[in-house]
Amino acid sequence: MSLNVRVQHPSNSVRAMLLRIGDAAALADVVGNAPKKMVDQLADISDERHYDPRPRITRTFNSPAHREAAQIIAQWMREAGLAVTIDAMANVRGVTPRDRVSAEGRHKPRVVVGSHYDTVIDGGKYDGALGVIVGIQAVRALLMAPGELSRPVEVIAFSDEEGVRFPVTFLGSRAVAGTLTDSILSISDKNGTTLLDAIKPHTRADVLAAARDPEEIGTYVELHIEQGPVLEAANKGLGVVLAIAGQKRITVSLMGEQGHAGTVPMGEQRRDTLAAAADMIIATERICQPGWSKRGGHLGALKDNVSNEKEEMLVCTVGHIINMPNAKNTISGAVNMTVDVRARREEVRDAAAEDISAAVHEACSARRMEMCELVTSHEAPPVESAEAPTKRLRSAIAGFYGNYSSLPGTVKSVDDIPALISGAGHDALAMADIADVTMMFVRHPGGVSHSPLERVLDEDIVSATGAMALYLKDEVESGDDPTCGA
Amino acid sequence: MSLNVRVQHPSNSVRAMLLRIGDAAALADVVGNAPKKMVDQLADISDERHYDPRPRITRTFNSPAHREAAQIIAQWMREAGLAVTIDAMANVRGVTPRDRVSAEGRHKPRVVVGSHYDTVIDGGKYDGALGVIVGIQAVRALLMAPGELSRPVEVIAFSDEEGVRFPVTFLGSRAVAGTLTDSILSISDKNGTTLLDAIKPHTRADVLAAARDPEEIGTYVELHIEQGPVLEAANKGLGVVLAIAGQKRITVSLMGEQGHAGTVPMGEQRRDTLAAAADMIIATERICQPGWSKRGGHLGALKDNVSNEKEEMLVCTVGHIINMPNAKNTISGAVNMTVDVRARREEVRDAAAEDISAAVHEACSARRMEMCELVTSHEAPPVESAEAPTKRLRSAIAGFYGNYSSLPGTVKSVDDIPALISGAGHDALAMADIADVTMMFVRHPGGVSHSPLERVLDEDIVSATGAMALYLKDEVESGDDPTCGA
Repeated sequence: MSLNVRVQHPSNSVRAMLLRIGDAAALADVVGNAPKKMVDQLADISDERHYDPRPRITRTFNSPAHREAAQIIAQWMREAGLAVTIDAMANVRGVTPRDRVSAEGRHKPRVVVGSHYDTVIDGGKYDGALGVIVGIQAVRALLMAPGELSRPVEVIAFSDEEGVRFPVTFLGSRAVAGTLTDSILSISDKNGTTLLDAIKPHTRADVLAAARDPEEIGTYVELHIEQGPVLEAANKGLGVVLAIAGQKRITVSLMGEQGHAGTVPMGEQRRDTLAAAADMIIATERICQPGWSKRGGHLGALKDNVSNEKEEMLVCTVGHIINMPNAKNTISGAVNMTVDVRARREEVRDAAAEDISAAVHEACSARRMEMCELVTSHEAPPVESAEAPTKRLRSAIAGFYGNYSSLPGTVKSVDDIPALISGAGHDALAMADIADVTMMFVRHPGGVSHSPLERVLDEDIVSATGAMALYLKDEVESGDDPTCGA
Repeated sequence: MSLNVRVQHPSNSVRAMLLRIGDAAALADVVGNAPKKMVDQLADISDERHYDPRPRITRTFNSPAHREAAQIIAQWMREAGLAVTIDAMANVRGVTPRDRVSAEGRHKPRVVVGSHYDTVIDGGKYDGALGVIVGIQAVRALLMAPGELSRPVEVIAFSDEEGVRFPVTFLGSRAVAGTLTDSILSISDKNGTTLLDAIKPHTRADVLAAARDPEEIGTYVELHIEQGPVLEAANKGLGVVLAIAGQKRITVSLMGEQGHAGTVPMGEQRRDTLAAAADMIIATERICQPGWSKRGGHLGALKDNVSNEKEEMLVCTVGHIINMPNAKNTISGAVNMTVDVRARREEVRDAAAEDISAAVHEACSARRMEMCELVTSHEAPPVESAEAPTKRLRSAIAGFYGNYSSLPGTVKSVDDIPALISGAGHDALAMADIADVTMMFVRHPGGVSHSPLERVLDEDIVSATGAMALYLKDEVESGDDPTCGA
């Protein structure tokens, strides 16, 4: 079946790839040019458009721009030949039509490809959006080839992954996975609107109905920008994700003693809360610095279990701090801050969290704080990608590059494809509750994410869409095994 | 002249004090009960009253509540027998009427007693207000006694000391001192209203006309709550201020590299701006900690000049920090913070500021920051109280307590009166440009200032008003010397 075509130009390689999927030389545009245009079109839909002639990209749950984006995505799905619904949580879902799936395949676990269409405030063009668009175009290419699919394929554009409007992430994918609890449904945004109020006229029952039965879904695949430096450093366009790091967020609340900066002497009479917080920020960094497995504490105790620190991907960050009253002439009386801890393995993550907690308590007592409270405000277990789909994803990437492309970022063999650990959370994390998951990462030059500086090379978009189409074809065809070969 | 009356009850002691001033046993209320009621009355006038049935105390420059407070203060001054004007900067000024001052005294430098009637947001009852009220009531007592004064006395309620609405402190007293520059007049509040716009229909010329000629003013005296722990610890109700500390505010702007908390490895690849700021906060504290004259740096170089560190009142505080983007999952990309440095002497303050700057630059380079900028955003020289008025203030306090009172906080002799350094700035700082200044501090139980928790004991209000009346009488009578005995 391999055409073994070597070409110099993306458009040719894409055509070649499409030929392999089925036929449709004329449709190179689907994979070659359209995705980039779609990215730009979606980037124009921003909550801030009505106020600013050159708006930043901001799409938060259920805003007018968010709803407009859903309609555009629904339209793209329809144009791709999919049957579209928008569920109670504003997830846009397009499924291959019944008549394009073989009779025996219609009830088999479907292959789902997805990502999210919300953004952070002042976000980038690609985070979330690229995964949605590549998913739609890859399925479109699949459907352009004649013949029946041996399983249904579904594209899902999740409504809220970033958790900007409501203080919970993965609203969209949790609704699909059926893991939205009542306590989440009753949380409020800054204006006091609850999530259940925000989705009206939809009701709690509608949200529950949006959940997918685990048996309906085989594999979930997601494409995302890397948001890190690995692929760029390796000079590779695409990589596969072996695992998504586990995450723990600890909210630290401190209360010392507020005082006038001019009148309270230095030393014993001060209980400066910001200075105590500074001690804790430094300690957090020190604890997780490279070499952690060779030092003391709970992390050091793991040393027999850790052969290569780098592969454990332990990162610890204080990114959020609120100082009170935060006045230039006032000694800080209270601080709230968040410590974010991630690692590929739960035991590493938890050992780091323990060591950080101990350091916080130590600083608290050394600085005679009035109150120190640590609360684990968020916890997500690590997720390992499923073996068989990830292997197929590697083959699809290698197949695209190796046989049909001379694009920059090309890899020559499966072994040459970078395998990454995702430090960021993704919808795949929520989908892992009901599906085998795997992820493809796209090179992200500069690595600045959650920012208008996000960048993706044109040729990487082409390669990603092409490889995704190849993967989906392969994944669908593997569908004779009801567990999807996982 | 001394009546040498020993009494057990505040009302009696007040009566005795009033007898000494002149006569008017029936007017004990002026000093004894009225000030406390006036404090409560003024505390009810808040910017927030229209929105909240139990409002916090907030009076900012030229707000409706601020203007209402000015009218009430003006009315109190009239009731005290003073001739009242409100100047272009909203300072309320009451001066003893011409016919109560001797013919030869009318053009002598006047004695001014004052404080401010604005508050911070959610402030206390006493900061500023108590000084205004005690001033009015002390002059009222003076005028109730028969006879002519040998110099005019003026009470000024300054409009803005806190600098809440506009980012400049001492607007009121600077207007009186003639030190409001055009650049200050053109600063804007948060809504973009300039100071000159805010005082309309008054003009720049009206502001300049509000300035007092230094030759018109002899002594300026101000009563203020201590905002610190010294008087309470010494179990004394009143103290005198020997000096107001010099102040320097350094705004530190840092830029590192923003990044995803999950994807950027620890170590070399991070340039975490908040962690750099934490280093600087700790360094600032360490540099100014007791023992500074025995350590290195610019402070250590002063050691031959420093006999007693405590008397230098060096304090260094980071009270204000803004972290950006301040997201739980994002490595900090930028920080702005303010270092506040105060000391009784300029050379100590400046040496500390130099050492802190050096530490900031060191942390900047160790952490490979993209940008580090230090700007001195505010600088005030220290002010020493004038010797003769301060001596008279001590005598008045000792005279009040020693001869006429058995109130708690009593001191037996002049040497027993606590002498303090004010770490906080006060209107006296601005008035020092045109007058000899001195200040009285009132015990401040708990020491929590700029807060609804501000507290002053009833008996200390009585003592303060009585002692202020005695002091004013003495200061006025010292007035044969045109430099007011300074």
